[in-house]
Amino acid sequence: MVRRVYIDNKPLEEAFALLWTELENAGFFVLEGEEVDVEDALGRITVVPVVAKRSSPHYSASAMDGIAVKAKDTFSASDTSPIVLKRGEQFIEVDTGDYVPGEFDAVIMIEDVNFLSHDEAEIIAPAVPWQHIRSVGEDVIASQMIIPSLYVIGAYEIGAMLTSGVTKVQVVKKPRVGIIPTGTELVEPGGKEPEPGEIIESNSRMLASLCRKWGAEPCRYPLVADDKEKIKEAVLRCASQTDIIVVCSGSSAGREDFTAEIVQEAGRLLVHGLATKPGKPAILGLIEGKPVIGVPGYPVSAALVFELLARPLIYRKQGLRTPPNQEVEAKISRKLASSMGVDEFVQVNLGKVGGELIAYPLGRGAGLTTTLVKADGVVRVPRGVEGFEAGEKVAVSLKRDWDIIEKTLIVIGSHDIAVDWLGDILNRKFGLRLACTNVGSMGGLVALKHRESHFAGMHLLDPKTGEYNVSYVNRYLGGSKPVLVNLVLREQGLLVKKGNPLGVRGVDDLAGSGVRFVNRQRGSGTRVLFDHLLQQVGIDPGLINGYDREEFSHLAVAAAVKNDAADVAVGIYAAARALDLDFIPLLQERYDLCFLKGAIEEETLDALLHTISSPEFREEVMKFGGYDMSLAGQVIWEGD
Amino acid sequence: MVRRVYIDNKPLEEAFALLWTELENAGFFVLEGEEVDVEDALGRITVVPVVAKRSSPHYSASAMDGIAVKAKDTFSASDTSPIVLKRGEQFIEVDTGDYVPGEFDAVIMIEDVNFLSHDEAEIIAPAVPWQHIRSVGEDVIASQMIIPSLYVIGAYEIGAMLTSGVTKVQVVKKPRVGIIPTGTELVEPGGKEPEPGEIIESNSRMLASLCRKWGAEPCRYPLVADDKEKIKEAVLRCASQTDIIVVCSGSSAGREDFTAEIVQEAGRLLVHGLATKPGKPAILGLIEGKPVIGVPGYPVSAALVFELLARPLIYRKQGLRTPPNQEVEAKISRKLASSMGVDEFVQVNLGKVGGELIAYPLGRGAGLTTTLVKADGVVRVPRGVEGFEAGEKVAVSLKRDWDIIEKTLIVIGSHDIAVDWLGDILNRKFGLRLACTNVGSMGGLVALKHRESHFAGMHLLDPKTGEYNVSYVNRYLGGSKPVLVNLVLREQGLLVKKGNPLGVRGVDDLAGSGVRFVNRQRGSGTRVLFDHLLQQVGIDPGLINGYDREEFSHLAVAAAVKNDAADVAVGIYAAARALDLDFIPLLQERYDLCFLKGAIEEETLDALLHTISSPEFREEVMKFGGYDMSLAGQVIWEGD
Repeated sequence: MVRRVYIDNKPLEEAFALLWTELENAGFFVLEGEEVDVEDALGRITVVPVVAKRSSPHYSASAMDGIAVKAKDTFSASDTSPIVLKRGEQFIEVDTGDYVPGEFDAVIMIEDVNFLSHDEAEIIAPAVPWQHIRSVGEDVIASQMIIPSLYVIGAYEIGAMLTSGVTKVQVVKKPRVGIIPTGTELVEPGGKEPEPGEIIESNSRMLASLCRKWGAEPCRYPLVADDKEKIKEAVLRCASQTDIIVVCSGSSAGREDFTAEIVQEAGRLLVHGLATKPGKPAILGLIEGKPVIGVPGYPVSAALVFELLARPLIYRKQGLRTPPNQEVEAKISRKLASSMGVDEFVQVNLGKVGGELIAYPLGRGAGLTTTLVKADGVVRVPRGVEGFEAGEKVAVSLKRDWDIIEKTLIVIGSHDIAVDWLGDILNRKFGLRLACTNVGSMGGLVALKHRESHFAGMHLLDPKTGEYNVSYVNRYLGGSKPVLVNLVLREQGLLVKKGNPLGVRGVDDLAGSGVRFVNRQRGSGTRVLFDHLLQQVGIDPGLINGYDREEFSHLAVAAAVKNDAADVAVGIYAAARALDLDFIPLLQERYDLCFLKGAIEEETLDALLHTISSPEFREEVMKFGGYDMSLAGQVIWEGD
Repeated sequence: MVRRVYIDNKPLEEAFALLWTELENAGFFVLEGEEVDVEDALGRITVVPVVAKRSSPHYSASAMDGIAVKAKDTFSASDTSPIVLKRGEQFIEVDTGDYVPGEFDAVIMIEDVNFLSHDEAEIIAPAVPWQHIRSVGEDVIASQMIIPSLYVIGAYEIGAMLTSGVTKVQVVKKPRVGIIPTGTELVEPGGKEPEPGEIIESNSRMLASLCRKWGAEPCRYPLVADDKEKIKEAVLRCASQTDIIVVCSGSSAGREDFTAEIVQEAGRLLVHGLATKPGKPAILGLIEGKPVIGVPGYPVSAALVFELLARPLIYRKQGLRTPPNQEVEAKISRKLASSMGVDEFVQVNLGKVGGELIAYPLGRGAGLTTTLVKADGVVRVPRGVEGFEAGEKVAVSLKRDWDIIEKTLIVIGSHDIAVDWLGDILNRKFGLRLACTNVGSMGGLVALKHRESHFAGMHLLDPKTGEYNVSYVNRYLGGSKPVLVNLVLREQGLLVKKGNPLGVRGVDDLAGSGVRFVNRQRGSGTRVLFDHLLQQVGIDPGLINGYDREEFSHLAVAAAVKNDAADVAVGIYAAARALDLDFIPLLQERYDLCFLKGAIEEETLDALLHTISSPEFREEVMKFGGYDMSLAGQVIWEGD
């Protein structure tokens, strides 16, 4: 039982420099060109300067609609003694762009010409020689450099090339990136329902799309099982057909991780293991003078490693510098601990609250593709730094257009499906984006108190009064002019598998019964509710199997029940219906939005309230079932 | 002879609002969707929110390489009393991502396991329930909204969709833009040499490329001659096949301009004539509820009108807001007069000199496609403003990436072909871009004096001493630590047609002979030289036919001779050779670069001097002929 467990911990810059030097020596970066039609050259990069083949205009051209004349014929013309010119001999009629033959040397605008007859034109002012005539080559002259090398061809360049007689252009050949997905557990998307342990292959498609974005031509290879010889065969074929070889997963040091060995056998292994997080089990090597990159299987790691290692290679291979990432400074919303030994890259949301840009760290799980979708930027915690304290200023590398971030509303608190749809309508109608963090109702109150969010969703039952939210808001946010507006009324209940196989009827059935429960996190409104219900019926939480097992949303507990990781959970009807579970109703609760007057822009607030009250929103939410919209948009309570 | 000469002068916003309202009423902006494979969806826009079809992971998955155990079996494990677990019953071996069957509820990392035999694993610490197990749906849960509507799909979104079982996605149908090039004078690119009066059709290709950039699908129609019925037929066909109809040229009010009439007959003419410069003769109309845009024939006008009118339409038709142009503030380098009645759009170069961003207006001719290529930004001179004074701060709408502008060297002065190639190498090797303005040697001195350029090319003969540049630089820039570095030595001479049909032998032959001369502008080194030569041989400039006709570069005068707009010019050998003219040598002159010490960054200067002295540069320049590189890179003179 020998398993090689440890891999290197090479700092990113060192790893990269190692590869870079080897590639330069191998002549990898020598530009390869190909000829394409100018009309197809949009976005391509010139290899050599483009030189005009023809002058434009290639003849003396009229710059106006009018008549071409001989200037000397017109010198004595004036208001009081007009001159009459004869068609053919003394003038010809020309439109803009027409050829002005050599015997004429000026053009008079049509507005200044009085045609006495078809053949006679009267003018009352002299023409200056060469007036309104475009010189040969006024725009471009044959032999002139019109586009330098290593220039990205845009629409204007296409126009200029065609104008100057250039119809073919030498452009940089797109680097071909071969991507090999490996792993016995992988199945192709769109096929049959994957079994437990099977994973839908998506990384190679994600990386292929990144290649396209960076100007390369991806070439996806078929899935290869975890069989060393088969993977090696694929790697060698790839090395003979493409410029950059990317092996997806198998880059670690587990039982089925062969990439490092293969690179060592087929070429040279330069680095196995980066001092980055995520992305540690990355591989860098060289086969036939071409770079091989082994990317980890987790999507966030794969994306990061590819961005750090492949992106600069792809740009340089095209003769370009890697475009710098735009950076902004933001206040980090919470403490960010990081290990001293690695460069850690943390995905964040960004939003301006009260004029201050705040970065909200997202989940750091390497398996969360949704984090990549949600993220607005990345914070790098450098090696040798233990992390950042909450409130510290950090540099954020932007991943999203700044104008979208400026129109972002930060929503921290309890989650409800209706909030997602609210966001969708706000975006469509008002160009406002919601960035939601689900930390439960209590977390929402705290974020509002710290002025770190624009509003919060909450459903906090006060057991003493039976009233929702008001007493909590008053306690936490009193003095900050809080306002509660209803979003929905919704059904809470027990979620059980279809057909309720364990015959659960109510909260009483959960204690000591061997029924596997999955709970919501402390601070969530649903946890408050559940604890209240337990107290009402007098059940000791310690008797519930799974009381300490916490998930962070209605859908998460529903998914646990759905996939038999648990038998029962507490959650809303919409979650049960979404995952086709049975639902045992417990009660209807009020889910409100809370904001602080003055801490949210009036225009934004108007858009928000308008949308909540709109028939469109009502209609979308009602589709999910379990909702009552009769109070939606009503101001429930305003504090001082 | 009735010609309709006048068209409207409708302010841009009014014209646009008119069209916008009509289109909204006609339902033009209602989104049309189509289904595409997720793998092909890069850059497409969602029509409706994308909802996960499957949870990911869809099973309890190991987050580590290790062993899956029952936590309760491990509770008593410690350093001093290890526990030995039995394979199969008490543990199974799992790799990252593997399924953890329901009977196990924790994973122990492989590093913490000591295999005593194949069947026995020793552990020395207890496992916490659910440790290192990824919950079902940790990443995404079936039914969850993963991408909102009207969202541009990127690589990560493709990964997230596939992961969550989504393989088809509803995206916005790309707006189809029909582009009809009209004009009897037009010929297709790549055909035979165009005759005088014929123009290579390039606008439709330029506009098609802009459409692609903005997300639309262009559809180019065949050339149509200036025949009203034929154009009308094309417009109607286009209206039945596409979403936006664009008629290229024929938008003015000349003899052959039919677009306005056609729109009026086939639909509704909303606007004929915009209060913009360029772009005045634009047309806006409606046919079958679809917008028709008539764009002027001049490429700069065409590009501007398309940008102003079509771009917002194309974005809105896709459900998107038009991305705002990035704006910067810059000091304008010279007075910019503009007519009060129009919004004028002036293309500018941008560069940072001495820490200050300066905008350099480019030529305002509507026929200059090369201006579009050169421009870094656009300055809008609003209606009601007479223009800007030199040195005034103006807002510039960026057309080029800021990081390129930051690496721009502003070169103002005399032009030489070698400067273009110098720029090309500087860009390739150092990522430095040259933005050259050719205003002649004297203009270069003035720009340096005003600290408006990084360096200048010059070849100013001092007739008294026979020395070049030194006395001029000393007079203008003394006290500013000027430095002269040689770029090239070059042959000046007379340019005549191939075979020298008029038998010109020297400057003496130009006077009173009926030979048509074309001169260089005042302030250019060549003009200084020519005047000196005339004085030497005692010729009165007034006797030279064309002495007052000025062009601004060697290539420009060569082109005039080449295309028979003149018989003789003074210029360099390289220009004669480039345009295949005969050359009558007059003398060799020194062409230097001048810069001010301390006014150019040291690093930049090093790159510059390094390049000038490089064999690569020497080789490129020598290809043109007429150059002597023996002094290239030598410091000629340094002043105080």
